[in-house]
Amino acid sequence: MKTLIKDVVILTMKDDDRPINGDILIEGDKIQKLGHQLTDEVDEVIQGQGMIAMPGLVNAHQHTPMSLLKGFSDDLKLMDWLNQKMLPAEARMTPEDIYWGAKLAMAEMIKSGTTAFADMYIHMNEIASAVAEVGMRASLTRGLVFLQDDGGKRLTEALELVERWSGKAEGRISIMLGPHAPYTCPPHSLKKIIKIAEEMNLPIHIHLAETKEEVIKIREKYNQTPTEYLYNIGLFERSHVLLAHSVYLNHLDIRLLNGMRGGVSHNPVSNLKLGCGIAPIFEMINQGITVGLGTDGAGSATTIDMFEEIKAATWLQKLAYGDPTVLPARQVLRMATSESAKLLNIDNQVGTLEIGKKADIILVDMNKPHLQPNHNIESLLAYSVNGADVDTMIVNGKILMQNRKLLTIDEDELLEQVSVRAKRIVQGI
Amino acid sequence: MKTLIKDVVILTMKDDDRPINGDILIEGDKIQKLGHQLTDEVDEVIQGQGMIAMPGLVNAHQHTPMSLLKGFSDDLKLMDWLNQKMLPAEARMTPEDIYWGAKLAMAEMIKSGTTAFADMYIHMNEIASAVAEVGMRASLTRGLVFLQDDGGKRLTEALELVERWSGKAEGRISIMLGPHAPYTCPPHSLKKIIKIAEEMNLPIHIHLAETKEEVIKIREKYNQTPTEYLYNIGLFERSHVLLAHSVYLNHLDIRLLNGMRGGVSHNPVSNLKLGCGIAPIFEMINQGITVGLGTDGAGSATTIDMFEEIKAATWLQKLAYGDPTVLPARQVLRMATSESAKLLNIDNQVGTLEIGKKADIILVDMNKPHLQPNHNIESLLAYSVNGADVDTMIVNGKILMQNRKLLTIDEDELLEQVSVRAKRIVQGI
Repeated sequence: MKTLIKDVVILTMKDDDRPINGDILIEGDKIQKLGHQLTDEVDEVIQGQGMIAMPGLVNAHQHTPMSLLKGFSDDLKLMDWLNQKMLPAEARMTPEDIYWGAKLAMAEMIKSGTTAFADMYIHMNEIASAVAEVGMRASLTRGLVFLQDDGGKRLTEALELVERWSGKAEGRISIMLGPHAPYTCPPHSLKKIIKIAEEMNLPIHIHLAETKEEVIKIREKYNQTPTEYLYNIGLFERSHVLLAHSVYLNHLDIRLLNGMRGGVSHNPVSNLKLGCGIAPIFEMINQGITVGLGTDGAGSATTIDMFEEIKAATWLQKLAYGDPTVLPARQVLRMATSESAKLLNIDNQVGTLEIGKKADIILVDMNKPHLQPNHNIESLLAYSVNGADVDTMIVNGKILMQNRKLLTIDEDELLEQVSVRAKRIVQGI
Repeated sequence: MKTLIKDVVILTMKDDDRPINGDILIEGDKIQKLGHQLTDEVDEVIQGQGMIAMPGLVNAHQHTPMSLLKGFSDDLKLMDWLNQKMLPAEARMTPEDIYWGAKLAMAEMIKSGTTAFADMYIHMNEIASAVAEVGMRASLTRGLVFLQDDGGKRLTEALELVERWSGKAEGRISIMLGPHAPYTCPPHSLKKIIKIAEEMNLPIHIHLAETKEEVIKIREKYNQTPTEYLYNIGLFERSHVLLAHSVYLNHLDIRLLNGMRGGVSHNPVSNLKLGCGIAPIFEMINQGITVGLGTDGAGSATTIDMFEEIKAATWLQKLAYGDPTVLPARQVLRMATSESAKLLNIDNQVGTLEIGKKADIILVDMNKPHLQPNHNIESLLAYSVNGADVDTMIVNGKILMQNRKLLTIDEDELLEQVSVRAKRIVQGI
């Protein structure tokens, strides 16, 4: 299968590449050529006049099935949100609900420019099936909460997930191990996971220091910061680690992360909406730590449009420093593409548009009043584009959306399924 | 002309009204009936299945022609932004550029749900012509900077604007007087404007305390806060006053505003993007001050999508108080509708959907993956909807957009005009 994208403005997001006018030739799952007036015998030609071609956005922290609960419990205190709403609702979700919830999130993500995501939840087998079917790229993690002894059931599921899905779906699926968070993982459990991760060469996905309360709890229990707790237990010694949130890190914590493999997924919309705080990502970046962007689940963030995260991320650092020059457009666009790809450990495959890399590409339609005139493409992408401006998406060389129509999801069936299921799940809560 | 909107979910935004299923009958420029299964001989029927009908959004602070400069000078220090970029570019704008810039902003506003706006700029006659033609509702203000003596030219223009346009365009245009800001208006000029405003019963539109630098400047000059300066000069005694920004107000400043006519336009995206700070609007609201929402010009904010302001406003107060219950969905939606209408002094005409009020209505298409399932309409509107979800707009009983097609603006001609003009304006800057 060969596809030719004609007459686009190409933003490769590689190093200091400036936008260029040209064409993109895709062969199989890869970018074959980038250049001017390419011609070839191809199966499909996409006319891209007025569009920008850029790497698909990579959402580095998600709980996809929570899309079934978007708007269900907004404007509540964190503990009320969790205990009165989320936990009872999640307890009622069947594996089939999880499948449809994940599919719903994927429809939202495709329609707003996200080609790959990191997901931590339960019933991951259903999510993997949905990913295989829909055609996105994903890093999947069975969340491991060790507050009660479950006789090793969750860990078994996590390892079965590796066995069954690692590298599957044309190589689009990868697996991480997911010790949930410092406050839900005692030292012996964490050590065990770290050991398994090292032995099996698996990356680790974990929440860190999302709230002030977590910092207090870990201080009381271990007389350390959450970051120190993870550091001293050896988490950062060998494995690639994806840290979600990392809002409450002090200067010393940030130094401890220096040199780590992996990095931090910043999720500003969720952090704002739950009133958590501003993660010190500018300082982290200046310390050489890789910082990408994620949305968290729609249960908290309500929107999982990565273009909202792009805006929120740069706005918040400008606010925190009282300085509009902090985290300029290009840098925050890199966070959502190449940097998030590093967090998912797939930056050798995606995150920039380069010959030989996988064809994970979005076309953004700039021929609209809010995106004209065009003084600076990167400014418009960072500060004015929203998800609905994404016209076309290609993942692994396959077209998942064209002219805003989803090609691998039946949208009517999806919306009917999620409406019925969501009603049942929250009934009486 | 009679129009019937069928089968929508109606969110009146009046008092504690809950969403109801029903129809809306429009006759001439007014809402004639709201109810179930309305029938009448009408000229046009709009099928609204799956849509929400709500009051059009009111943008309480704009500089419309700056849409020509969106993305031209992002990520710069405020003074560099102003002196190296905005001022030289603005100096090159012809009256015809102003007309097209205003029209561009109106296209952006219509396509993102804004039906009415307050605008402060120069060459207001051109903007008024564009408003008359496009069909939006607007409160127009000739900005008055009194740093140099211009022999009364600007004030004359301001009064000519009143004479020529007040109440015109089927009553859609109203005029305010616009002393620019405390730091550009010495006491004698301000007093003069206040007196004219009282005599002619005109509202006043003024910037207040947007930056820390302004607070320092006014302290040095008058040994007062900017708010004290305006208060002591008598600004709040009689006239209706629309205060833009109001970021740096202390507790005592906020008390001084207690009981004022008018209120504050909060412009969170611009404040974030320029690194200004978080306006204490939750405290203002608790003190009984009316707080609406605005975008500021696209020159600073880049986006003028009011749904971005809705999100940013509630996110920021939740952040400032570390409390997700602050400024819940319904309250922030009121800010963008009924409260902003109060600021424009047109709340007797618009801001809620009520029989006898002007028909300024938007239909939001909820039949999309990111807006389903529907647990809570107000949550979805506040946290997940973006401007592109607005399907249809009616202003003063007339359809300005249907199925996302602009009916009073030739979009192709507009984009061509602004592209050529924008290039000329910034050439060499």
